[in-house]
Amino acid sequence: MRFTSRTSSDGVTEQLFTLASDFGEIPGALWTPDDATAGRPLILMGHGGGQHKTAPGIAARARRFAADGGFAVAAVDAPGHGDRPRTAEHDRIITELRTRAQTGGDVSPVVAEFHALLAGQSVPEWRAVLDAVQELDRVGAGPVGYWGMSMGCGLGVPFVAAEPRVRAAVLGLNGAETSAGAAARITVPVEFLVQWDDQMVPRAASLALFDLFASAEKTLHANPGRHGEIPAFELDSSLRFFARHLG
Amino acid sequence: MRFTSRTSSDGVTEQLFTLASDFGEIPGALWTPDDATAGRPLILMGHGGGQHKTAPGIAARARRFAADGGFAVAAVDAPGHGDRPRTAEHDRIITELRTRAQTGGDVSPVVAEFHALLAGQSVPEWRAVLDAVQELDRVGAGPVGYWGMSMGCGLGVPFVAAEPRVRAAVLGLNGAETSAGAAARITVPVEFLVQWDDQMVPRAASLALFDLFASAEKTLHANPGRHGEIPAFELDSSLRFFARHLG
Repeated sequence: MRFTSRTSSDGVTEQLFTLASDFGEIPGALWTPDDATAGRPLILMGHGGGQHKTAPGIAARARRFAADGGFAVAAVDAPGHGDRPRTAEHDRIITELRTRAQTGGDVSPVVAEFHALLAGQSVPEWRAVLDAVQELDRVGAGPVGYWGMSMGCGLGVPFVAAEPRVRAAVLGLNGAETSAGAAARITVPVEFLVQWDDQMVPRAASLALFDLFASAEKTLHANPGRHGEIPAFELDSSLRFFARHLG
Repeated sequence: MRFTSRTSSDGVTEQLFTLASDFGEIPGALWTPDDATAGRPLILMGHGGGQHKTAPGIAARARRFAADGGFAVAAVDAPGHGDRPRTAEHDRIITELRTRAQTGGDVSPVVAEFHALLAGQSVPEWRAVLDAVQELDRVGAGPVGYWGMSMGCGLGVPFVAAEPRVRAAVLGLNGAETSAGAAARITVPVEFLVQWDDQMVPRAASLALFDLFASAEKTLHANPGRHGEIPAFELDSSLRFFARHLG
């Protein structure tokens, strides 16, 4: 793991890094309270499709988790996203997605295909990132949570199912198409967000994914609005959820 | 309004009262912080079917709202419940409900009939109770919230729709059968609770009721478990919801 920059504002230190892996260099970002020491809880954040490790919705939430919850937070560019190269297969699927979106076609099966393709790479990548971040003096091997909406949920479900170090997850804005089998293997507490008027994820598919989680504690929060229009008070709720389960 | 008893424990004063009304004497309970003065927010709590004003699920939540939120809280026996007389019509419907429940029949239409019958009386009763409670030195004319699950939701929806003093409501464990028209007239913030494995309220009916609220801010919280098995953390959430909207 090689750090390439370090800045601090409002009590939160942001460090950019790259991690060598079997899949090439993984660019990432780490947020910690300025005075961070080892043993603190860590939240891994998975960004949405077309976004990247420091997209505004990721960075703002990460800073809030670090500042108000005392968490360490890590995000990485998903395969084919941010500073990472796209393959011809990525390009083919993205073109298909755009065509369907522009012509009013059904994007769900293509989104599911894309998530399934990326998850084969992102699950082992997240495990490598987690190994490396837990080695850091500022983080250590404390309890781990996962936060991911939309594609961050599509890739997060198989990761949370596969990784026993993850003890709690906030997921949402995604349906059951890609990850039904993995969802049924998740047993940790889950807070699941649904946008009631989501134009990209059918409501029934969202409810079906929530239904599949095998967690004894799972809670669904649905709010009016379109994909991505999650109300601000849900960030407070996510923070309390992680504090309750990782604190 | 005539007070019949007053006790205090853990910083919360509980007063029992009766209020003369067009429908006879209404027995009620009022919880306030021991040091309560006028101008504080008031939460009206509607109990479930077969319960009463000081049922354990009501009293425990009321005490928590008063102790941790500083709210005044009032509950009354619904028509035909607690210390109030039942009419022959109440008896007929309750007998029909029990028969259907015992024989595995569909209780939904009978529940809806019961709620509709009672709401014709409970809506004006709640308005009379609110008038009287807001006159008290310990309460005053501050902002008002309504909390009601199951029958407390069935009777609460038409009340919240009709009463402009109510600024926020926590509702749940009820479907759209009785109160669809009233639900569509509710515009205040709503937090709506659904038990995912509710044996009494079909999931689709619950989701349909949430769908109907015209509120710009409405949030649905669904949790695993049967009717009435609401997890404890939802009380924390209700408290924060009322603090946010009535504080």
